[in-house]
Amino acid sequence: MKHPIEVCFSPAVFQDFYKPDLRVVVVDVLRATSSICTAFMHGAEKLIPIGSVDELRGFVNMGHVLAGERNGNTLDFVDFGNSPYNFTRDKVENKSVIYSTTNGTKAIQLASRCKEVLVASFLNISSVCKYLDENQESVLILCAGWKNRFSLEDTLLAGAICEKLLETSHFSTVCDSAVSSLDLWQLAKHDLMQYVEKCAQRHRLKAKGLDDVLEYCFTRDLTDIIPVYRDGVLRPMDRSD
Amino acid sequence: MKHPIEVCFSPAVFQDFYKPDLRVVVVDVLRATSSICTAFMHGAEKLIPIGSVDELRGFVNMGHVLAGERNGNTLDFVDFGNSPYNFTRDKVENKSVIYSTTNGTKAIQLASRCKEVLVASFLNISSVCKYLDENQESVLILCAGWKNRFSLEDTLLAGAICEKLLETSHFSTVCDSAVSSLDLWQLAKHDLMQYVEKCAQRHRLKAKGLDDVLEYCFTRDLTDIIPVYRDGVLRPMDRSD
Repeated sequence: MKHPIEVCFSPAVFQDFYKPDLRVVVVDVLRATSSICTAFMHGAEKLIPIGSVDELRGFVNMGHVLAGERNGNTLDFVDFGNSPYNFTRDKVENKSVIYSTTNGTKAIQLASRCKEVLVASFLNISSVCKYLDENQESVLILCAGWKNRFSLEDTLLAGAICEKLLETSHFSTVCDSAVSSLDLWQLAKHDLMQYVEKCAQRHRLKAKGLDDVLEYCFTRDLTDIIPVYRDGVLRPMDRSD
Repeated sequence: MKHPIEVCFSPAVFQDFYKPDLRVVVVDVLRATSSICTAFMHGAEKLIPIGSVDELRGFVNMGHVLAGERNGNTLDFVDFGNSPYNFTRDKVENKSVIYSTTNGTKAIQLASRCKEVLVASFLNISSVCKYLDENQESVLILCAGWKNRFSLEDTLLAGAICEKLLETSHFSTVCDSAVSSLDLWQLAKHDLMQYVEKCAQRHRLKAKGLDDVLEYCFTRDLTDIIPVYRDGVLRPMDRSD
């Protein structure tokens, strides 16, 4: 029996894909899930995703590292914003980071109704795909999108994950969004950075001078860490589980 | 100044695209908007889209033609279901058709908050694009999708419309879903019926023996009629307006 892969293009339609036994892979390439992977690469102990700005504000002066943005702008009461370049070893090693972003953290919280929630980026793609293939279950890739709208860069990562899983022959799909993600990825991958010029978020970041992370966020396999969300907290998956 | 084109992949995220002054083009290739165009080709006076089955049932024995389906199955109290082949001249000429489908009619009703609502299919694509180009405004293509989920065949039509409008140089887009629709359409168009084999809805129809309309629904320019939705009723656009 092959296991189904589906892709959900927006948190707004997550409910229409929801089944309790899904393994959900959350992607937000520019920039939340790239930043989360980077934080754990640099030794963060845990990350706590927070949905609202007000809730995040409640953690001020409580001894945690605070990170957050809205619409690309760093919140005025946090330690730093959502660039993966902020999550340096000197700032996050052995620390708890409380974290809120426009799209990514909400998507992670939404997915928590399912059996397992993983965080993927290009930075850990091979490790995520290996884990999914070794622990075969129904997979839903949840794109964080942009304010409920479809996001091309998340779709490209979804397509790259679909490609790897479908190659294993343990997975199949009859999901139009998975099929489209795969086709767009296969169109893009031969000149990825050129294709990424089409992404609206690429231009939103450029307009704010935040696009220095572009090549970094599309770099594959810098880490084999898989962040897992459980009981409200993101931690690196313990492979001895 | 170029006018923006956007594509909305699901009625569930329409609100995130909504502006009162949009011209909305509703697409539901398999099969609602293809059937609506066919009804007007065959002389229907008007079509009244109805959202719920119960509401449609209220029109029984009131002298109208009733058409409707849910999940591809013809409702048991209507004259016929949602195949465009049902909307023959002998059944619809000079008639009012009261009409409800799983996805398409809801999308039309949803769009009615905007300035203008047009119905497009491959059957009237060139006429719709000519009208959009001659009456330049912001355009939103609303894909009816499948139960709030992304639908590949609607995306292909959206991409085909984007291609024609972007060629005119009167339109531009910074919308990731428009960019993706265009890329998928350009991937598909050289062997369209082969590509359509990828669509989940194509297989849903096949499983119910309803896929006899497949080639028909992807046939371009059988009519220049543009159905317009105003005050709860679809009628052919009066070009002398």
